[in-house]
Amino acid sequence: MAPFASLAELRKSCRDLPAADEGAAGKVARRDALLTKPPGSLGRLEDAVAWLARWQGRAPPRLDRVEVLVFAGNHGVTAQGVSAYPAEVTAQMVANFAAGGAAINQLARVAGASLRVVPLALERPTADFTTAPALDEEAFLAAVATGHDAVSPECDLVCLGEMGIGNTTAAAAVAAALFGGGGARWAGRGTGIDEHGLGRKRAVIDQALARHADALGDPLAVAAALGGRELAAILGATLAARRQRIPVLLDGFVSTAAAAPLARLKADALAHALAGHVSAEAGHRMLLDELALAPLLDLGMRLGEGSGAAVAVLVLRAALACHLGMATFEEAQVSDKAP
Amino acid sequence: MAPFASLAELRKSCRDLPAADEGAAGKVARRDALLTKPPGSLGRLEDAVAWLARWQGRAPPRLDRVEVLVFAGNHGVTAQGVSAYPAEVTAQMVANFAAGGAAINQLARVAGASLRVVPLALERPTADFTTAPALDEEAFLAAVATGHDAVSPECDLVCLGEMGIGNTTAAAAVAAALFGGGGARWAGRGTGIDEHGLGRKRAVIDQALARHADALGDPLAVAAALGGRELAAILGATLAARRQRIPVLLDGFVSTAAAAPLARLKADALAHALAGHVSAEAGHRMLLDELALAPLLDLGMRLGEGSGAAVAVLVLRAALACHLGMATFEEAQVSDKAP
Repeated sequence: MAPFASLAELRKSCRDLPAADEGAAGKVARRDALLTKPPGSLGRLEDAVAWLARWQGRAPPRLDRVEVLVFAGNHGVTAQGVSAYPAEVTAQMVANFAAGGAAINQLARVAGASLRVVPLALERPTADFTTAPALDEEAFLAAVATGHDAVSPECDLVCLGEMGIGNTTAAAAVAAALFGGGGARWAGRGTGIDEHGLGRKRAVIDQALARHADALGDPLAVAAALGGRELAAILGATLAARRQRIPVLLDGFVSTAAAAPLARLKADALAHALAGHVSAEAGHRMLLDELALAPLLDLGMRLGEGSGAAVAVLVLRAALACHLGMATFEEAQVSDKAP
Repeated sequence: MAPFASLAELRKSCRDLPAADEGAAGKVARRDALLTKPPGSLGRLEDAVAWLARWQGRAPPRLDRVEVLVFAGNHGVTAQGVSAYPAEVTAQMVANFAAGGAAINQLARVAGASLRVVPLALERPTADFTTAPALDEEAFLAAVATGHDAVSPECDLVCLGEMGIGNTTAAAAVAAALFGGGGARWAGRGTGIDEHGLGRKRAVIDQALARHADALGDPLAVAAALGGRELAAILGATLAARRQRIPVLLDGFVSTAAAAPLARLKADALAHALAGHVSAEAGHRMLLDELALAPLLDLGMRLGEGSGAAVAVLVLRAALACHLGMATFEEAQVSDKAP
């Protein structure tokens, strides 16, 4: 059963979010100050542990159960020739995930994370959003609910990835609708479209923005009209994680654009989310800037699937290992800095 | 027995270096093109696997034996008040490494790397280089030899870290001597010196550059006069790794400055080395730019000990797991991009 009966009910939930546990973060910071290293010298590793504690409400935090959720959807806009790959690749890649042959299978294993792939009605692509809303309210809410329900309450951290031929076009349209600028600002090469295709992609986004001008004032209407099922599911999962105090690692451009409407509904709605990486996809860095999210990694990746988030899990594991395992100045009998 | 009887002999070795195995790198690239992802979409993960293959001379490469070497030394220049911590902390931290309580112990474990700590005559600090060369030729060559011998021929990858109160002053002096600019350009806050101390550190570096003006034309003389034992050992280890075709992950400012004289002796001398990260220590980013090294990570770390390099090992493991474990388009029956 869908947890949200209407857009209005979903909107209300998006604005009624639990706060962070600053006490847990403070406890982490106090232990950190005692460990045998100059204060702050582990940089973002220190911040990351405090962030985990802040949102888990637990000091020290833990990373015993890390899950990578990959949502997959199909997009009617692929009819406009916006992708370098045919639409059937979405389902073929879902089969590849099941067989263990994709990048995310290897990366989740290395990161000590479980992987769950959630295909969303692949046989029913969204409508081509240059002519109609991608999803009607019912279909949008159903996809949000699927994502919401996919987050296990026992998780210590969830990584949100996606697969969907055509979905960088949807993500660019959503980003443009939320933050201004048109196709020229937000369209990138996705899986590797050529110059001609990129021009087409920009035009398609501008057409969609014009077609759905009425929806642009409402972030959830934007998500429904310009997004897609996997984007809606990521929005639902990001919301569910916040409500259950589970920290989130976002992945690339699509994953970030999917969660972005939440930040437009409530300013701190993504405080429990960290950008695992900045993708090489053109719009991602700008989108992260708009959301004031500082990516952990910058490795030129642009694959999606949760791949950048999974690599970022390794950084969090390194950070937590230092926090849990290091000796204090007193334990190690190391002279502390003169006060 | 020292492998180098004189500076002249060492200099000759530094210029007589084996080339990369481009065949192995090409083999990696050819397999990469078949894997179920858009070409290039794993970004630097793809480059890293090709780099490992290129220097291991083996496709696919492997990461079965990864070693973190941490060299420790003491510095006479600490008498000038250039560090936030007292000089005895070097030995105390070496004891902490042995007891397993330092950051690098945790990070090496998470990275699946063995850790070897090599203290270099801690009871005999280098001379204060504002008044005399830090090391005479014999002591310098002995430290280079120690580093050279520390690299095990069976290693698949070696991470080069250091510990030494006062050694960011030495590193800054070496960087200034090799690349120009004085203390103002290269001095940073190290373990956390205050504004007044930073001014002193800058002045100390400028004094040292003036004192050793005659040495500045010879990169090895610079390393001896302005460096220190742990820096010399890193130079020796970097050279040994190249001669044995073992890829190297450099760590932060000190580790990079230690290896930098090699690049001044032969332009491609650090082609087998990757910068694991860019440190928050002021001069590191500039030094990497001078050496045309692009860091894998940028996490605001500034601890030394090989800590940034150890975290970077995780990225290499992720990269290799993708290369080894992913299915090809043909195996997974995924439609490839239209040609």
